[in-house]
Amino acid sequence: MADEASRIMVDFRTEPAKYKHWKLSANGPVATLTMDVKEDGGLRPGYELKLNSYDLGVDIELYDAIQRLRFEHPEVGAVILTSGKERIFCAGANIRMLNQSSHGWKVNFCKFTNETRNAIEEATAESRQGYLCAVNGPCAGGGYELALACDWIIMADDGSTTVALPEVPLLAVLPGTGGLTRLVDKRKVRRDRADFFCTLEEGIKGQRAVEWRLVDEVVPRSKLDETVQRRAAELAARSDRPKSAPGVALTPLPRTIEGDRISYSSIACVVDRSRGVAEITVQGPAAPPPASLEAIHAAGAQFWPLRVARELDDLFLHLRANEEEIGIWVFKTQGSVELVEAHDRALQDHAADWLVREIRLCLKRTLKRLDVSSRSIFALIEPGSCFTGTLLELALAADRSYMLDGTREGGAEKPATLRLTGMNFGAYPMVNGLSRLASRFLDEPGRVDELKRRIGEDLDARAAGEAGLVTFTPDDIDWEDEVRVGIEARAAFSPDALTGMEASLRFGGPETMESKIFSRLSAWQNWIFQRPNAVGDKGALRVYGTGQRSEFDRRRV
Amino acid sequence: MADEASRIMVDFRTEPAKYKHWKLSANGPVATLTMDVKEDGGLRPGYELKLNSYDLGVDIELYDAIQRLRFEHPEVGAVILTSGKERIFCAGANIRMLNQSSHGWKVNFCKFTNETRNAIEEATAESRQGYLCAVNGPCAGGGYELALACDWIIMADDGSTTVALPEVPLLAVLPGTGGLTRLVDKRKVRRDRADFFCTLEEGIKGQRAVEWRLVDEVVPRSKLDETVQRRAAELAARSDRPKSAPGVALTPLPRTIEGDRISYSSIACVVDRSRGVAEITVQGPAAPPPASLEAIHAAGAQFWPLRVARELDDLFLHLRANEEEIGIWVFKTQGSVELVEAHDRALQDHAADWLVREIRLCLKRTLKRLDVSSRSIFALIEPGSCFTGTLLELALAADRSYMLDGTREGGAEKPATLRLTGMNFGAYPMVNGLSRLASRFLDEPGRVDELKRRIGEDLDARAAGEAGLVTFTPDDIDWEDEVRVGIEARAAFSPDALTGMEASLRFGGPETMESKIFSRLSAWQNWIFQRPNAVGDKGALRVYGTGQRSEFDRRRV
Repeated sequence: MADEASRIMVDFRTEPAKYKHWKLSANGPVATLTMDVKEDGGLRPGYELKLNSYDLGVDIELYDAIQRLRFEHPEVGAVILTSGKERIFCAGANIRMLNQSSHGWKVNFCKFTNETRNAIEEATAESRQGYLCAVNGPCAGGGYELALACDWIIMADDGSTTVALPEVPLLAVLPGTGGLTRLVDKRKVRRDRADFFCTLEEGIKGQRAVEWRLVDEVVPRSKLDETVQRRAAELAARSDRPKSAPGVALTPLPRTIEGDRISYSSIACVVDRSRGVAEITVQGPAAPPPASLEAIHAAGAQFWPLRVARELDDLFLHLRANEEEIGIWVFKTQGSVELVEAHDRALQDHAADWLVREIRLCLKRTLKRLDVSSRSIFALIEPGSCFTGTLLELALAADRSYMLDGTREGGAEKPATLRLTGMNFGAYPMVNGLSRLASRFLDEPGRVDELKRRIGEDLDARAAGEAGLVTFTPDDIDWEDEVRVGIEARAAFSPDALTGMEASLRFGGPETMESKIFSRLSAWQNWIFQRPNAVGDKGALRVYGTGQRSEFDRRRV
Repeated sequence: MADEASRIMVDFRTEPAKYKHWKLSANGPVATLTMDVKEDGGLRPGYELKLNSYDLGVDIELYDAIQRLRFEHPEVGAVILTSGKERIFCAGANIRMLNQSSHGWKVNFCKFTNETRNAIEEATAESRQGYLCAVNGPCAGGGYELALACDWIIMADDGSTTVALPEVPLLAVLPGTGGLTRLVDKRKVRRDRADFFCTLEEGIKGQRAVEWRLVDEVVPRSKLDETVQRRAAELAARSDRPKSAPGVALTPLPRTIEGDRISYSSIACVVDRSRGVAEITVQGPAAPPPASLEAIHAAGAQFWPLRVARELDDLFLHLRANEEEIGIWVFKTQGSVELVEAHDRALQDHAADWLVREIRLCLKRTLKRLDVSSRSIFALIEPGSCFTGTLLELALAADRSYMLDGTREGGAEKPATLRLTGMNFGAYPMVNGLSRLASRFLDEPGRVDELKRRIGEDLDARAAGEAGLVTFTPDDIDWEDEVRVGIEARAAFSPDALTGMEASLRFGGPETMESKIFSRLSAWQNWIFQRPNAVGDKGALRVYGTGQRSEFDRRRV
């Protein structure tokens, strides 16, 4: 059943006119995102989205709205997130949906919702588009986790409105979208209070919620709107976003899927089911970047860096949700090193512009999404490629990279080279807060400074190998065998063991709230999502709502 | 089968005369720990410990040896860890043993082996008893993880000696004892090289192992002993440990188990199976501390802080391994606040002494073991208790604490008070590197400084509540109901969900290599240990050694 249902293809592309569950209204510097989930609007059959509960489809719209607010509404400095229902803010992720989902679907769902909550926080901190949450009714589980992603939580003080994380007592699972980590790490709720709160089905309301730091303020129901609007106006006033610039429309992504070939304007992906491989070729820009900032704005969604970011992002989401058995993503690039470099220069020269800032952030988010994807990532660097600057990040994100040393026998193309640009040195931090170069050279941070002095230099295979930028540099004689063996071996390993290994090796060094959410809280949740106490015949998640009592194996592990 | 086998009671108390698998030889400033595992000496029946592979019994001896070297051998400044077998260093944890173990046993086994590896690193860094590893034969999986815990790894360059982490390719699980984290975080192996290394069954040898930072040096087999001895002598010469002080014998721990009552000299533990609770009462000291440092040395293992540390440590290990269904540990204390404080003062006044340093570190390790135990921790603070300084840490480690406000009706005892000592401010960091007070007040680090000014003050329930040191302060009328309901509710929740929740809420703030190992790597491993690809009928761990091929569900999660 679960397997059948998950074969429905998920499309992450949407737009406000198609929203079923959210209303986006932008009115001057303050926008409002209203959650009003359509009960019979679930992504898959078999469950009703009661009480403003959500499934992946609801979250896809939220993700789209957050993205559009940044690009299409430069004038918006504050976003109010609230409920359109009379008596409920949000009951969290839909339990029936979870119950009928495969393990993989649940985990992928949580990953995406986590990324979307992180995007809310990034919009607040870096796009200066701050999120406030107006909690106008009971707010539980994933509902409260949505509130926790906002910078300021205002709750109605009306006797029925509470915040709660009832997953442990009700469902025998964890809050799946960063709730536990945000409680103690973001809001710094005292750990014993957090412990008590997370075991309370009914949640906490009123002044105690403020005292315990669970919300920022409570106001009488009658003052909620007024207070929220005032706070939002204050927040918007502190934003550095332009007050009256025109936005950039995020035009529909052109994508065609023909058999096992997925094509975008600048990306071609070929799925090889027998080998479990998706070969992803990114096409460099065909022309120099627009000559001025004005021309970049005029190009909008057609400006190559934004186009590539959006297309890669969509491809990653598509492959994650719809191609679970494709465990290896192999990246290639094609095009002109100089033109990629020129586009990177534009991203640097105009970094202070609001649109260019958004494009850089969009690339950053997309590359972070790649890092936390549970797929093996390989990069193949061959003649004709343009692993330069922003595109070099794909090779640096790879678990392993192969660079052809020299030319191909009989080939006309020059040997492949790598080229660093200023964009490799901090513009695209990973979830651990470090650039991919800094993560790579934890042993000798000084090497990053050395590499900075080599920006613009063409690094052939030997130089790239010596600089530590690639893993292996076979020549034409060995290339085919070495790459083939590497991929075949990878494909033969246990997908689960690879996922745990990659999550552990990719993020050396420091931790951040985000990295804690992805690599620690998620790992615990994945474990619990497998345990009979949650998902067995008598597990709490399984029997929820049936009137049956759950039965637990009492052994502590 | 697994369940039957795991009912054998595990005793963590041992001594060198009883060792089956290790030889401890201390000879001046350099000691040698030789692993020579007895094939038929497994803790449980059903497997042979071939190729110096290990089970929990082997590790219990290692744990004991490390502990004794610190206390009984102040003159030892360096420890050589090596193999006593001719052709193998260590093949890692025994696969058959893992295969016949329950999930809980596997996880508990890995936790203990992790703690023991951490103790090796702590001995090196803080006891100044540095560990070197002499790799004199193939060193795989847990064997290499043992090497990784050492400060310096010297490998024989002989054609057959390699280091390897073959868990992913061979067994479809992760290296379970910190290997992945130590590769990238401790040894700072470049992530793509770590990735390649962890997928190689056969491992890496010779100069490449040095270049890739997997070992520190390779030497011809004929020079191995000489080189290791020289490095050890150099390391010992840099130690600050006394050259000729007499050691302190770790005398056998007096423990009696009568029915559900476990007693030590200073701890009484009553197991209530119907409620799933272990009530642990720690008795404060009966007399003032010895009047001088010499007298402390003379008291040795009888000195109250060392006695309490060793007894608590043994109790935690016993309950973890032998009482899986007892999910809640409730701490009480009894005794004189003044006498606990006086002992803490002794630990502070003589902090520079080697023995007092060891006692403080032993308390630190024991409290850390408590923090990472997968049990709910409650503290009950009642009249007659002595939650002071070191013992207050038990309440600060608790997920939740209850302090009785006032006296009991008709009771003769004065109201309970808490008292801070200097030992609460940094002597006992958690695995995240913070004191329990600093972890508690992440929201306002300044509160820790304020509390420092209140050292020695008697804090009654109201003052302790206001200071944020306790969770709830019911009075005599509410006490019984509130505590009972709290414990009953806890006992009714899913043990797995509680484990994930507690692991997430206990460690807010920064991360260290240790916290990454416990909360992230372990969580991934626990997940993988449940996955059909590892432990299902055709899982790789299950079919290992049978000649059958494993079959994997290829879906990535």
